[in-house]
Amino acid sequence: MSCRVPGSGPYRAIARGGPQDEYGPEGTRVVHVGSLPVGGPEPVVIAGPCAVESREQTVEIAHAVRAAGADMLRGGAFKPRTSPHDFQGLGREGLEILAEAREQTGLPIVTEVLDVRDVALVAEYADMLQIGARNMQHFPLLTEAGRTGLPILLKRHWAATLDEWLGAAEYIAVEGNLDIVLCERGIRSFTQGTYNRSTLDVNIVPAVKRLTFLPVLVDPSHATGDDELVPSAALAGCAAGAHGLIIEVIAEDTDPTTPLCDGYQSIRPSVLERIIDDVRPGGASWHALRPSGSGG
Amino acid sequence: MSCRVPGSGPYRAIARGGPQDEYGPEGTRVVHVGSLPVGGPEPVVIAGPCAVESREQTVEIAHAVRAAGADMLRGGAFKPRTSPHDFQGLGREGLEILAEAREQTGLPIVTEVLDVRDVALVAEYADMLQIGARNMQHFPLLTEAGRTGLPILLKRHWAATLDEWLGAAEYIAVEGNLDIVLCERGIRSFTQGTYNRSTLDVNIVPAVKRLTFLPVLVDPSHATGDDELVPSAALAGCAAGAHGLIIEVIAEDTDPTTPLCDGYQSIRPSVLERIIDDVRPGGASWHALRPSGSGG
Amino acid sequence: MSCRVPGSGPYRAIARGGPQDEYGPEGTRVVHVGSLPVGGPEPVVIAGPCAVESREQTVEIAHAVRAAGADMLRGGAFKPRTSPHDFQGLGREGLEILAEAREQTGLPIVTEVLDVRDVALVAEYADMLQIGARNMQHFPLLTEAGRTGLPILLKRHWAATLDEWLGAAEYIAVEGNLDIVLCERGIRSFTQGTYNRSTLDVNIVPAVKRLTFLPVLVDPSHATGDDELVPSAALAGCAAGAHGLIIEVIAEDTDPTTPLCDGYQSIRPSVLERIIDDVRPGGASWHALRPSGSGG
Amino acid sequence: MSCRVPGSGPYRAIARGGPQDEYGPEGTRVVHVGSLPVGGPEPVVIAGPCAVESREQTVEIAHAVRAAGADMLRGGAFKPRTSPHDFQGLGREGLEILAEAREQTGLPIVTEVLDVRDVALVAEYADMLQIGARNMQHFPLLTEAGRTGLPILLKRHWAATLDEWLGAAEYIAVEGNLDIVLCERGIRSFTQGTYNRSTLDVNIVPAVKRLTFLPVLVDPSHATGDDELVPSAALAGCAAGAHGLIIEVIAEDTDPTTPLCDGYQSIRPSVLERIIDDVRPGGASWHALRPSGSGG
Repeated sequence: MSCRVPGSGPYRAIARGGPQDEYGPEGTRVVHVGSLPVGGPEPVVIAGPCAVESREQTVEIAHAVRAAGADMLRGGAFKPRTSPHDFQGLGREGLEILAEAREQTGLPIVTEVLDVRDVALVAEYADMLQIGARNMQHFPLLTEAGRTGLPILLKRHWAATLDEWLGAAEYIAVEGNLDIVLCERGIRSFTQGTYNRSTLDVNIVPAVKRLTFLPVLVDPSHATGDDELVPSAALAGCAAGAHGLIIEVIAEDTDPTTPLCDGYQSIRPSVLERIIDDVRPGGASWHALRPSGSGG
Repeated sequence: MSCRVPGSGPYRAIARGGPQDEYGPEGTRVVHVGSLPVGGPEPVVIAGPCAVESREQTVEIAHAVRAAGADMLRGGAFKPRTSPHDFQGLGREGLEILAEAREQTGLPIVTEVLDVRDVALVAEYADMLQIGARNMQHFPLLTEAGRTGLPILLKRHWAATLDEWLGAAEYIAVEGNLDIVLCERGIRSFTQGTYNRSTLDVNIVPAVKRLTFLPVLVDPSHATGDDELVPSAALAGCAAGAHGLIIEVIAEDTDPTTPLCDGYQSIRPSVLERIIDDVRPGGASWHALRPSGSGG
Repeated sequence: MSCRVPGSGPYRAIARGGPQDEYGPEGTRVVHVGSLPVGGPEPVVIAGPCAVESREQTVEIAHAVRAAGADMLRGGAFKPRTSPHDFQGLGREGLEILAEAREQTGLPIVTEVLDVRDVALVAEYADMLQIGARNMQHFPLLTEAGRTGLPILLKRHWAATLDEWLGAAEYIAVEGNLDIVLCERGIRSFTQGTYNRSTLDVNIVPAVKRLTFLPVLVDPSHATGDDELVPSAALAGCAAGAHGLIIEVIAEDTDPTTPLCDGYQSIRPSVLERIIDDVRPGGASWHALRPSGSGG
Repeated sequence: MSCRVPGSGPYRAIARGGPQDEYGPEGTRVVHVGSLPVGGPEPVVIAGPCAVESREQTVEIAHAVRAAGADMLRGGAFKPRTSPHDFQGLGREGLEILAEAREQTGLPIVTEVLDVRDVALVAEYADMLQIGARNMQHFPLLTEAGRTGLPILLKRHWAATLDEWLGAAEYIAVEGNLDIVLCERGIRSFTQGTYNRSTLDVNIVPAVKRLTFLPVLVDPSHATGDDELVPSAALAGCAAGAHGLIIEVIAEDTDPTTPLCDGYQSIRPSVLERIIDDVRPGGASWHALRPSGSGG
């Protein structure tokens, strides 16, 4: 079981009741990415392509997700890939494309860094650094990312316990950086490879909130691996109490086999718009998007 | 992968596009339990004690869950227990208590049967038969339950694939009984025993709906094993598209160590009422119950 | 964690140090099936077809496995199958075929029972009753099987904890029947469906022996789901301390697609013979069969 | 399923039948660590402390494991730890201690590197670089480690598929370094935290050998997390076809609570000696060590 002793536990810097907890028994630290608050009463939605593949593709999607109501742009310039023979990202050129997309749309950008030697470079461009699931326990990277002072999006590894995840966040926090946003992206279970690629672990959302004041997002794209399941996972994540979503999007008319990564789990801007309407308090009822209508 | 060939697959009797599909590409068969429709536009809520332990306890909870807005009463008269030295249920006496609770409250009752030799007995009392997770592939029981013609609540085993679950439903369906309601109750993952007892698999809800026209519920009590996590799991299940919930409840002032089973995962009637208000279209906003408020 | 209090735990009847432990701190109860000791110093090998499909098929395999050195014959007359549209076994006819195979070969027979109403019938024919993985927590069946007084082969469910498995054995033991042989047949992990169908859990073998004096076998056929992996799993199981093996076999010249179940995980008699030579103390060195020779 | 197309698959550089396969359909590349062959007919045994904690502790254990018959010394100078508040290793001082232990015993040393910026430093001291489970997909580290030309011990992450593991090895191989030794260290399953900390996946040993010519070891210490289970896991790993073992050891008289990491899963030199005798062809029979004697 997780240690809950404030002030001395393995993740004391981020613990509820710990020395840095100014947020009350159920409060959340609001992490600002530029002027965007993450962890406030309104769920945030981060959206964009899996990878930055070209200027045209990225800028087009950036405009589309802004039009759909997204708050921030995502997109990978450095991509961790299972095989070295797969597309590894555009690197610095990808960062420049993201910066241009930000300039055109006004959306802050979050992008992944996976090499300690690239932290300074990525920090020049990004509004928020993403630590990907594979690097959740890449401890030197956590330390260097923490030292930039930028807000950090820390994904949970697909086989990480709650203690391991919060321990990873603690590596960032002990550098004096509490601007950490956690992100559940699905766990690996026996269901892998049948109807989904991962199992969205909705239970960890309230479990995280019991132990830390950091905000937590859900990534329904990786937590399903199937664009048809993304809307229900997005709503379920918010219903479980997540402070927002990060979602992969492809352009409305792109063939899902075209993107160099994750085409099949990316949704269209029109679907994104329905999800955003649905999870926003002032928007349409969440019942409207319930996947597959009931009744005959 | 699941077989999707209508008319010839391993669960052809319940398959979308199969010979018995009168429900359209996204429609759901409405299963009537007494006069209560399951699978219609409004989510149903089944609630009650884990086990029927006494007349007083059961009747009290029955009144409380009706007052909270529940549609049906649950409670175990025959209990499958890990050890033979644990409480095994009151048997026939438990069924009679359930019948009295129904008479007093008007709520239809669902209760588990786990021995083929008890099917006729349980069918005398119950409005709906429950096949528990451990018995999901107890094939003779599926057959005998199907033959009663009563509606069947078929729980998913905690390690069942989608194909295994739908194959189990098919055993009931081939007896000419399509009044089957599926129920996801959490899967066993590496997270077991830390912050929860099971992982609620929200992704299987839309995955089920792609393949069959049967309605599907979520059991947030077993899918968490922790009363603090039940509300978020209940909302997440409905947000994922479930047609309703089945929830374990203890009386408002009962010590959680008192019940002979599952005290720690049972919620109070007052919590049940908030959940029901939340998942009902005409009720309070689902945002209201988001576990742990955001903002400082 | 497992309860280790002798005399009062959830599986007190089979616990080391419990009231029925006559076997010493590391001793094993020897269960006799006919004249065959299971749990003695020499590993036993049970082999035979997945299902009894015909007299000719079963008798041929029975002779082949005896020639290969097997001690007992396995074969299913009642088959639990995922879909009701799959072959369900020959029933009583299958039992008669098994009896004839026993008469011709002298091998005792173990066969599965899955309906409480069939226990008396199967007990007329079988030397040992098998409770399959799906029925590990079919408690009425455990009770009825225990009451026959016959030795019971109790398979572990693919998602059962150690406590659940020993709790199931306790249901048999409380009927006064300690002639229980446990059998690990692989657990369901995230690896399912890639290089194997199940993960052989070798660690549970010594873990079982710490808690109970009952003997334990390993089933490398279901624990791999791939005939190429069966030999290494068989040796690993014995190396981990199992008291023997249960293995599915097809005839030397049968096409693996021909059998009505499990053709692809069944090995040939010639492979069985090499495994048996290898695991027997007086046989060839176990190094000889190490799958895929080392060195260039 | 794994891609098996030689010359074009995601791990073509290490694939059986690929352009660099000089080893025949069942042959193994022998990786030399100093003069020690790994992958040859005799299983190698690597042993030593979890972490280098002091000169005295490390040198004592080094002598003890050499006396027990070990071929190589392991010990961590840089330790990946769940929390930043845990002991992180002695760093360069730890490397110097390892070098002294090598000088005194003649055993080559393998030690972990987890920061790309430390690769050159660690390579000055180590005979073999270890990439730990958490860093299996730390791709820049794989690349830098590969470029040293030193032999690499690549541990499997506890949730890695076979494709992910071999893809990680490919990152090393494409740097022109085929001196890669794979190491299975247990997967995370639902059994975690009950009778073991990980599940030793014996099936992946032959599965690896079908796809690549690289040698593969088993780590029974992490694959069990319990010193009582280490011997059976060690034998099971070798029986499944592993080319050797890597085992954590504490000094004969050390209290298991004393070491700064992994005390409870470390075995004594006397136990190591029995394991080595057992897995060596010319040594005692493997039957001798079968954990928990059979028979009454």
